[in-house]
Amino acid sequence: MQQQATDVILASDHRGFELKNKIKDFLREKKLFFVDIGVENSDRPLDSAPMPPIIKVVKEAAECVQSAKHMCGIFICGDGIAMSIAANRFRGIRAGLCRTVDGVKQARQHNDINVLCLGGESIDFEEAKKIVSAFLSTRPLEDVRYRKRQKLFDEMA
Amino acid sequence: MQQQATDVILASDHRGFELKNKIKDFLREKKLFFVDIGVENSDRPLDSAPMPPIIKVVKEAAECVQSAKHMCGIFICGDGIAMSIAANRFRGIRAGLCRTVDGVKQARQHNDINVLCLGGESIDFEEAKKIVSAFLSTRPLEDVRYRKRQKLFDEMA
Repeated sequence: MQQQATDVILASDHRGFELKNKIKDFLREKKLFFVDIGVENSDRPLDSAPMPPIIKVVKEAAECVQSAKHMCGIFICGDGIAMSIAANRFRGIRAGLCRTVDGVKQARQHNDINVLCLGGESIDFEEAKKIVSAFLSTRPLEDVRYRKRQKLFDEMA
Repeated sequence: MQQQATDVILASDHRGFELKNKIKDFLREKKLFFVDIGVENSDRPLDSAPMPPIIKVVKEAAECVQSAKHMCGIFICGDGIAMSIAANRFRGIRAGLCRTVDGVKQARQHNDINVLCLGGESIDFEEAKKIVSAFLSTRPLEDVRYRKRQKLFDEMA
Protein backbone atom coordinates (compact mmCIF):
# COMPACT_ATOMS: atom_id res chain seq x y z
CA MET A 1 0.00 0.00 0.00
CA GLN A 2 1.23 3.44 -0.94
CA GLN A 3 1.64 5.57 2.21
CA GLN A 4 -0.38 8.76 2.20
CA ALA A 5 -0.28 11.77 4.49
CA THR A 6 -3.75 10.87 5.66
CA ASP A 7 -5.30 10.80 9.09
CA VAL A 8 -8.03 8.23 9.38
CA ILE A 9 -11.08 8.96 11.53
CA LEU A 10 -12.75 5.75 12.69
CA ALA A 11 -16.34 5.43 13.84
CA SER A 12 -18.69 2.54 14.39
CA ASP A 13 -21.86 1.50 16.11
CA HIS A 14 -21.95 -1.61 18.32
CA ARG A 15 -22.39 -3.91 15.30
CA GLY A 16 -19.36 -2.42 13.55
CA PHE A 17 -17.18 -2.41 16.67
CA GLU A 18 -15.46 -5.75 16.05
CA LEU A 19 -14.41 -4.97 12.47
CA LYS A 20 -13.29 -1.49 13.55
CA ASN A 21 -10.93 -3.03 16.11
CA LYS A 22 -9.41 -5.32 13.50
CA ILE A 23 -8.96 -2.38 11.12
CA LYS A 24 -7.20 -0.46 13.91
CA ASP A 25 -4.65 -3.28 14.20
CA PHE A 26 -4.22 -3.24 10.42
CA LEU A 27 -3.65 0.55 10.38
CA ARG A 28 -1.11 0.21 13.25
CA GLU A 29 0.80 -2.41 11.21
CA LYS A 30 0.86 0.01 8.28
CA LYS A 31 2.01 2.81 10.62
CA LEU A 32 -0.95 4.95 9.64
CA PHE A 33 -2.29 7.49 12.11
CA PHE A 34 -5.91 7.14 13.18
CA VAL A 35 -8.35 8.45 15.75
CA ASP A 36 -11.22 6.29 17.01
CA ILE A 37 -14.25 8.45 17.85
CA GLY A 38 -16.31 5.55 19.23
CA VAL A 39 -18.33 3.61 20.15
CA GLU A 40 -16.20 1.88 22.77
CA ASN A 41 -17.83 -1.53 22.92
CA SER A 42 -20.21 -3.90 21.17
CA ASP A 43 -23.04 -3.49 23.72
CA ARG A 44 -26.40 -2.79 22.20
CA PRO A 45 -27.34 0.76 23.27
CA LEU A 46 -30.27 1.26 25.62
CA ASP A 47 -33.57 2.27 24.05
CA SER A 48 -33.84 4.87 26.78
CA ALA A 49 -30.65 6.70 25.71
CA PRO A 50 -31.50 10.35 24.97
CA MET A 51 -29.44 10.39 21.77
CA PRO A 52 -28.40 7.08 20.21
CA PRO A 53 -24.61 6.75 20.39
CA ILE A 54 -24.39 6.13 16.64
CA ILE A 55 -25.70 9.61 15.85
CA LYS A 56 -23.39 11.31 18.35
CA VAL A 57 -20.38 9.39 17.04
CA VAL A 58 -21.16 10.03 13.36
CA LYS A 59 -21.61 13.75 14.01
CA GLU A 60 -18.28 14.06 15.80
CA ALA A 61 -16.47 11.86 13.26
CA ALA A 62 -17.94 13.79 10.31
CA GLU A 63 -16.82 17.06 11.88
CA CYS A 64 -13.28 15.65 12.20
CA VAL A 65 -13.23 14.60 8.51
CA GLN A 66 -14.58 18.03 7.51
CA SER A 67 -11.87 19.80 9.51
CA ALA A 68 -8.94 19.23 7.13
CA LYS A 69 -8.41 18.14 3.55
CA HIS A 70 -6.07 15.28 4.48
CA MET A 71 -8.63 13.67 6.78
CA CYS A 72 -10.70 10.69 5.73
CA GLY A 73 -13.09 8.42 7.55
CA ILE A 74 -13.96 4.76 7.87
CA PHE A 75 -17.43 4.41 9.37
CA ILE A 76 -18.77 0.93 10.16
CA CYS A 77 -22.18 -0.37 11.20
CA GLY A 78 -23.89 -3.74 10.70
CA ASP A 79 -24.47 -3.40 6.97
CA GLY A 80 -23.05 0.07 6.26
CA ILE A 81 -26.44 1.57 5.33
CA ALA A 82 -27.08 3.62 8.50
CA MET A 83 -23.55 5.06 8.37
CA SER A 84 -23.89 6.04 4.71
CA ILE A 85 -27.24 7.76 5.36
CA ALA A 86 -25.97 9.62 8.42
CA ALA A 87 -22.52 10.61 7.09
CA ASN A 88 -23.89 12.05 3.83
CA ARG A 89 -26.04 14.48 5.85
CA PHE A 90 -22.90 16.58 6.38
CA ARG A 91 -21.59 19.17 3.94
CA GLY A 92 -18.18 18.19 2.65
CA ILE A 93 -18.68 14.51 3.43
CA ARG A 94 -18.94 12.17 0.48
CA ALA A 95 -19.53 8.74 1.98
CA GLY A 96 -19.61 5.58 -0.11
CA LEU A 97 -20.69 2.13 0.97
CA CYS A 98 -18.22 -0.18 -0.76
CA ARG A 99 -18.08 -3.94 -0.80
CA THR A 100 -15.34 -4.64 -3.35
CA VAL A 101 -11.88 -3.35 -4.24
CA ASP A 102 -13.03 -2.32 -7.73
CA GLY A 103 -16.01 -0.57 -6.17
CA VAL A 104 -13.96 1.51 -3.76
CA LYS A 105 -11.44 2.42 -6.48
CA GLN A 106 -14.22 3.78 -8.68
CA ALA A 107 -15.86 5.54 -5.73
CA ARG A 108 -12.56 7.32 -4.98
CA GLN A 109 -11.81 8.09 -8.63
CA HIS A 110 -15.25 9.33 -9.70
CA ASN A 111 -16.81 10.68 -6.52
CA ASP A 112 -13.72 11.45 -4.42
CA ILE A 113 -15.34 9.76 -1.42
CA ASN A 114 -13.70 10.86 1.82
CA VAL A 115 -15.60 8.43 4.02
CA LEU A 116 -15.61 4.70 3.39
CA CYS A 117 -18.65 2.96 4.88
CA LEU A 118 -18.38 -0.73 5.63
CA GLY A 119 -20.80 -3.36 6.80
CA GLY A 120 -19.13 -5.01 9.78
CA GLU A 121 -21.40 -8.03 9.55
CA SER A 122 -21.50 -8.28 5.76
CA ILE A 123 -17.82 -8.38 4.84
CA ASP A 124 -14.93 -10.53 6.01
CA PHE A 125 -11.76 -8.99 7.36
CA GLU A 126 -9.48 -10.16 4.53
CA GLU A 127 -11.68 -8.38 1.98
CA ALA A 128 -12.08 -5.37 4.28
CA LYS A 129 -8.27 -4.95 4.48
CA LYS A 130 -8.00 -4.87 0.68
CA ILE A 131 -10.84 -2.35 0.46
CA VAL A 132 -9.28 -0.12 3.14
CA SER A 133 -5.91 -0.27 1.33
CA ALA A 134 -7.53 0.68 -2.00
CA PHE A 135 -9.48 3.49 -0.30
CA LEU A 136 -6.31 4.98 1.19
CA SER A 137 -4.17 4.64 -1.94
CA THR A 138 -6.53 5.59 -4.81
CA ARG A 139 -6.59 9.20 -5.94
CA PRO A 140 -9.58 10.98 -7.53
CA LEU A 141 -9.48 11.52 -11.29
CA GLU A 142 -8.47 15.02 -12.35
CA ASP A 143 -11.51 15.54 -14.54
CA VAL A 144 -13.48 18.77 -14.59
CA ARG A 145 -16.71 16.77 -14.79
CA TYR A 146 -16.14 15.06 -11.46
CA ARG A 147 -14.80 18.17 -9.76
CA LYS A 148 -17.95 20.05 -10.73
CA ARG A 149 -20.20 17.26 -9.51
CA GLN A 150 -18.44 17.03 -6.14
CA LYS A 151 -18.78 20.78 -5.67
CA LEU A 152 -22.50 20.50 -6.35
CA PHE A 153 -22.84 17.58 -3.91
CA ASP A 154 -21.31 19.79 -1.26
CA GLU A 155 -23.63 22.66 -2.05
CA MET A 156 -26.61 20.32 -1.67
CA ALA A 157 -25.80 19.47 1.96
CA MET B 1 -44.59 -9.59 -4.83
CA GLN B 2 -47.07 -8.11 -2.41
CA GLN B 3 -48.76 -5.07 -4.00
CA GLN B 4 -48.34 -1.87 -2.05
CA ALA B 5 -50.03 1.50 -2.39
CA THR B 6 -46.70 2.96 -3.40
CA ASP B 7 -45.74 5.39 -6.11
CA VAL B 8 -42.22 4.83 -7.34
CA ILE B 9 -40.10 7.81 -8.35
CA LEU B 10 -37.38 6.80 -10.80
CA ALA B 11 -34.20 8.73 -11.47
CA SER B 12 -30.92 7.91 -13.16
CA ASP B 13 -27.86 9.43 -14.72
CA HIS B 14 -26.73 8.36 -18.21
CA ARG B 15 -24.96 5.27 -16.84
CA GLY B 16 -28.08 4.13 -14.99
CA PHE B 17 -30.43 4.85 -17.88
CA GLU B 18 -30.45 1.33 -19.34
CA LEU B 19 -31.25 -0.45 -16.07
CA LYS B 20 -33.89 2.19 -15.29
CA ASN B 21 -35.67 1.40 -18.57
CA LYS B 22 -35.70 -2.31 -17.79
CA ILE B 23 -37.06 -1.61 -14.29
CA LYS B 24 -39.83 0.51 -15.85
CA ASP B 25 -40.92 -2.50 -17.92
CA PHE B 26 -40.81 -4.64 -14.78
CA LEU B 27 -42.96 -2.16 -12.83
CA ARG B 28 -45.45 -1.96 -15.72
CA GLU B 29 -45.77 -5.78 -15.69
CA LYS B 30 -46.46 -5.58 -11.94
CA LYS B 31 -49.02 -2.80 -12.58
CA LEU B 32 -47.17 -0.48 -10.22
CA PHE B 33 -47.40 3.26 -10.77
CA PHE B 34 -44.14 5.13 -11.37
CA VAL B 35 -42.88 8.50 -12.52
CA ASP B 36 -39.55 8.81 -14.34
CA ILE B 37 -37.89 12.14 -13.52
CA GLY B 38 -34.97 11.66 -15.93
CA VAL B 39 -32.46 11.59 -17.46
CA GLU B 40 -33.96 10.79 -20.86
CA ASN B 41 -31.04 9.08 -22.57
CA SER B 42 -27.67 7.44 -22.05
CA ASP B 43 -25.66 10.30 -23.59
CA ARG B 44 -22.77 11.44 -21.48
CA PRO B 45 -23.58 15.01 -20.40
CA LEU B 46 -21.49 17.87 -21.72
CA ASP B 47 -18.76 19.20 -19.44
CA SER B 48 -19.99 22.66 -20.32
CA ALA B 49 -23.48 22.07 -18.87
CA PRO B 50 -24.17 24.71 -16.20
CA MET B 51 -25.63 22.18 -13.76
CA PRO B 52 -24.96 18.49 -14.34
CA PRO B 53 -28.22 16.70 -15.16
CA ILE B 54 -27.68 14.17 -12.39
CA ILE B 55 -27.89 16.88 -9.71
CA LYS B 56 -31.02 18.45 -11.21
CA VAL B 57 -32.71 15.05 -11.52
CA VAL B 58 -31.81 13.91 -7.99
CA LYS B 59 -33.09 17.17 -6.52
CA GLU B 60 -36.43 16.90 -8.30
CA ALA B 61 -36.76 13.17 -7.56
CA ALA B 62 -35.90 13.66 -3.87
CA GLU B 63 -38.51 16.39 -3.61
CA CYS B 64 -41.11 14.00 -5.09
CA VAL B 65 -40.21 11.27 -2.56
CA GLN B 66 -40.37 13.84 0.27
CA SER B 67 -43.81 15.02 -0.83
CA ALA B 68 -45.86 12.07 0.48
CA LYS B 69 -45.40 9.15 2.83
CA HIS B 70 -46.38 6.55 0.23
CA MET B 71 -43.70 7.68 -2.22
CA CYS B 72 -40.42 5.84 -2.62
CA GLY B 73 -37.55 6.18 -5.04
CA ILE B 74 -35.24 4.04 -7.12
CA PHE B 75 -32.18 6.07 -8.11
CA ILE B 76 -29.60 4.53 -10.45
CA CYS B 77 -26.12 5.59 -11.55
CA GLY B 78 -23.09 3.59 -12.70
CA ASP B 79 -22.23 2.13 -9.31
CA GLY B 80 -24.90 3.69 -7.07
CA ILE B 81 -22.40 5.75 -5.05
CA ALA B 82 -23.12 9.19 -6.54
CA MET B 83 -26.86 8.66 -6.13
CA SER B 84 -26.50 7.59 -2.50
CA ILE B 85 -24.35 10.64 -1.70
CA ALA B 86 -26.69 13.08 -3.45
CA ALA B 87 -30.01 11.61 -2.26
CA ASN B 88 -28.98 11.53 1.41
CA ARG B 89 -28.38 15.30 1.30
CA PHE B 90 -32.17 15.76 1.54
CA ARG B 91 -34.13 15.80 4.78
CA GLY B 92 -36.59 12.94 4.89
CA ILE B 93 -34.64 10.87 2.38
CA ARG B 94 -33.01 7.70 3.65
CA ALA B 95 -31.21 6.25 0.64
CA GLY B 96 -29.50 2.87 0.74
CA LEU B 97 -27.18 1.38 -1.86
CA CYS B 98 -28.17 -2.28 -1.94
CA ARG B 99 -26.68 -5.12 -3.91
CA THR B 100 -28.48 -8.16 -2.50
CA VAL B 101 -32.02 -9.18 -1.53
CA ASP B 102 -30.96 -9.78 2.09
CA GLY B 103 -29.26 -6.39 2.10
CA VAL B 104 -32.30 -4.47 0.92
CA LYS B 105 -34.59 -6.32 3.33
CA GLN B 106 -32.41 -5.31 6.27
CA ALA B 107 -32.08 -1.75 4.94
CA ARG B 108 -35.89 -1.47 4.81
CA GLN B 109 -36.41 -3.17 8.18
CA HIS B 110 -33.75 -1.35 10.19
CA ASN B 111 -33.36 1.99 8.44
CA ASP B 112 -36.72 2.34 6.68
CA ILE B 113 -34.94 3.40 3.49
CA ASN B 114 -37.31 5.20 1.13
CA VAL B 115 -34.85 5.41 -1.75
CA LEU B 116 -33.14 2.34 -3.19
CA CYS B 117 -29.88 3.17 -4.95
CA LEU B 118 -28.64 0.74 -7.57
CA GLY B 119 -25.48 0.48 -9.63
CA GLY B 120 -26.66 0.16 -13.23
CA GLU B 121 -23.30 -1.21 -14.33
CA SER B 122 -22.62 -3.35 -11.28
CA ILE B 123 -25.73 -5.50 -11.03
CA ASP B 124 -27.54 -7.70 -13.52
CA PHE B 125 -31.21 -7.23 -14.27
CA GLU B 126 -32.37 -10.55 -12.80
CA GLU B 127 -30.84 -9.66 -9.43
CA ALA B 128 -32.08 -6.06 -9.72
CA LYS B 129 -35.69 -7.28 -10.17
CA LYS B 130 -35.45 -9.36 -6.97
CA ILE B 131 -33.97 -6.41 -5.07
CA VAL B 132 -36.69 -4.03 -6.34
CA SER B 133 -39.40 -6.54 -5.35
CA ALA B 134 -37.93 -6.91 -1.86
CA PHE B 135 -37.61 -3.12 -1.52
CA LEU B 136 -41.28 -2.60 -2.40
CA SER B 137 -42.64 -5.43 -0.23
CA THR B 138 -40.56 -5.24 2.98
CA ARG B 139 -41.90 -3.17 5.84
CA PRO B 140 -39.80 -1.42 8.51
CA LEU B 141 -39.64 -3.06 11.93
CA GLU B 142 -41.90 -1.50 14.54
CA ASP B 143 -39.12 -0.97 17.05
CA VAL B 144 -38.77 2.22 19.05
CA ARG B 145 -34.99 2.03 18.61
CA TYR B 146 -35.19 2.31 14.82
CA ARG B 147 -37.96 4.92 14.86
CA LYS B 148 -35.84 7.12 17.09
CA ARG B 149 -32.77 6.69 14.87
CA GLN B 150 -34.69 7.56 11.70
CA LYS B 151 -36.06 10.68 13.32
CA LEU B 152 -32.53 11.73 14.23
CA PHE B 153 -31.31 11.02 10.69
CA ASP B 154 -33.98 13.39 9.44
CA GLU B 155 -33.01 16.06 11.92
CA MET B 156 -29.40 15.83 10.75
CA ALA B 157 -30.25 16.77 7.14
